[in-house]
Amino acid sequence: MRRFVLIGQTASASGDFSLENLPSSSGRLDALLRALRAALLVSHAVRTNACVYLVLRGGPKAPRVLRVDGARVKFLRPDERSLALLIKKTLDAAPPALSELTELRPGVDLRDGDLAELLSELADAPSYVLEEGGADVRTAALPEDAWFFLGDHQGFDAASRELLAARGAATLSVGPRSLHAEDVVTLLNNELDRRSPAPR
Amino acid sequence: MRRFVLIGQTASASGDFSLENLPSSSGRLDALLRALRAALLVSHAVRTNACVYLVLRGGPKAPRVLRVDGARVKFLRPDERSLALLIKKTLDAAPPALSELTELRPGVDLRDGDLAELLSELADAPSYVLEEGGADVRTAALPEDAWFFLGDHQGFDAASRELLAARGAATLSVGPRSLHAEDVVTLLNNELDRRSPAPR
Repeated sequence: MRRFVLIGQTASASGDFSLENLPSSSGRLDALLRALRAALLVSHAVRTNACVYLVLRGGPKAPRVLRVDGARVKFLRPDERSLALLIKKTLDAAPPALSELTELRPGVDLRDGDLAELLSELADAPSYVLEEGGADVRTAALPEDAWFFLGDHQGFDAASRELLAARGAATLSVGPRSLHAEDVVTLLNNELDRRSPAPR
Repeated sequence: MRRFVLIGQTASASGDFSLENLPSSSGRLDALLRALRAALLVSHAVRTNACVYLVLRGGPKAPRVLRVDGARVKFLRPDERSLALLIKKTLDAAPPALSELTELRPGVDLRDGDLAELLSELADAPSYVLEEGGADVRTAALPEDAWFFLGDHQGFDAASRELLAARGAATLSVGPRSLHAEDVVTLLNNELDRRSPAPR
């Protein structure tokens, strides 16, 4: 299972955002939703070997971690509005306290907590931070069960950086230009696909 | 200049679609819009060396070709709704007959016509069809001024295939899985970036 962790510095942890004005009303959750699509959807199918964690740090309910598991999720559509609606409904349906990842819709799980709580459950899974100047993803060792950590348009904050460094996370780069998180996810999936082609 | 041509078999050539229900009301224009983002936007910048052509074959005004030129476009935002609104306004503002590409908004041009009309203006520019089973993009010769032709979720129709074959377009593939057009565009841009890094 490939795991992509997307850190949304301002992304709304509650459903209090408007589908008519997603970027500004949701703290740029839209960028995370596009990365979610890139992580889980291929042509006419879901990647059952991939899983996405959104670390939502914006708004009154923050921080929360939302997980979408390609092996369990149903009816995942690629367009941004449909994905936003799925996340909004999940966040709206959440009970007041969730101390561990709890399935609220098929394949969509939620918990209270931040990156630190998520990391505490990883044990020693191989971890990678995606960032400019890292080792080239094309030549790096990349186990299929890797955890990939990506920032949003604001990048990583110092505290997140320290948490990941403390785990010994290696830094990877996908190429010479600074790209949107969704493009980075696409490039990671392609590199992994090339190394171990999934069944069609 | 890299050029990406996206063929939308049912994508609306008029502005008669709803932003609240883009996939079904626009004939899956949403898929083309995501590919447009992948083609033209990097982190906090526009790719001034890339250009996108949408071949719109759906609805009463079809066929039309809409071009977005990274060197001229202004205020291009990454979210699907903003991109849909830009295209909708452009299509709505079009005069009844446009026999050649005409700028209707900064960097956004429109013309009547289909793939055949577009191809007739290409002269002998190097052309590539993106499709499963083609030569691997990582090892193929890829001039920076290449034209890349991509299908939507329905792939290529026989007539388009013949037009492109008649030009001697080579077939390229990005990897072992069948991906959304936007992911294919991301992978092409990355391969070109790696060969000739653009200025930061």
